[in-house]
Amino acid sequence: MSDFTAYAVATVSSPLTSLADAPRQGDEGAPDAWLVVDPRYAEAARDMRPGADILLLTWLDRADRTVQVVHPRGDLARPEQGVFSTRSPDRPNPIGLHRVTVREVDGLRLRVSGLEAIDGTPVLDVKPVLDPISDR
Amino acid sequence: MSDFTAYAVATVSSPLTSLADAPRQGDEGAPDAWLVVDPRYAEAARDMRPGADILLLTWLDRADRTVQVVHPRGDLARPEQGVFSTRSPDRPNPIGLHRVTVREVDGLRLRVSGLEAIDGTPVLDVKPVLDPISDR
Repeated sequence: MSDFTAYAVATVSSPLTSLADAPRQGDEGAPDAWLVVDPRYAEAARDMRPGADILLLTWLDRADRTVQVVHPRGDLARPEQGVFSTRSPDRPNPIGLHRVTVREVDGLRLRVSGLEAIDGTPVLDVKPVLDPISDR
Repeated sequence: MSDFTAYAVATVSSPLTSLADAPRQGDEGAPDAWLVVDPRYAEAARDMRPGADILLLTWLDRADRTVQVVHPRGDLARPEQGVFSTRSPDRPNPIGLHRVTVREVDGLRLRVSGLEAIDGTPVLDVKPVLDPISDR
């Protein structure tokens, strides 16, 4: 078996509503956003605390999954590269990886800073940053 | 829609064949492993080079997806935590995140060091490490 079904465990609520508005990386000026945790996963999220640095894995549901080569950052002056060597959202499995900081916890809503994902983006997983150097 | 279908773009070939043998993190003594890229994704992988530090996203297909709280690292002396605050493989979407270094490229086979995933683990995505500090 080589197909796997992932579920949204949370959804991004953000003032960023279009890809045109979204910075390409979260350190390029993204506003605060909220993660709205699905109540079915409340237990998994129960120990989230303000100040925590976390990794979010999202499903970039507007991506083009047929794309295998891109000009990095859409810059036509740069030669095409295989998407596994880029952070293009267009890729066979459009999973976004975002490092953010939890600023506020309000029940099943988590406010985070530094998230470049647009409003409505599904969240697949939340992991702690284990090591500031390696992120292992 | 809140279900998403991911595909294996590569598979891990490793001397680690059981969970009991696998270190919990790649810096805890994992042997070299090979990533065998599915030929359908050859273009996406075409720019992988020895020396590259990459992030692998895997699907931990032996995980228990119903688990929402765990004793961290299986240590019963440590209080239970919600899995989003841990790196437990047991979680709603059992996606593993691994930082490894490419050591050798042989066609569609990539030898990597520091990978704790066991033989046969499906790989969902490969991304470059953008920044040694933040991994954004």
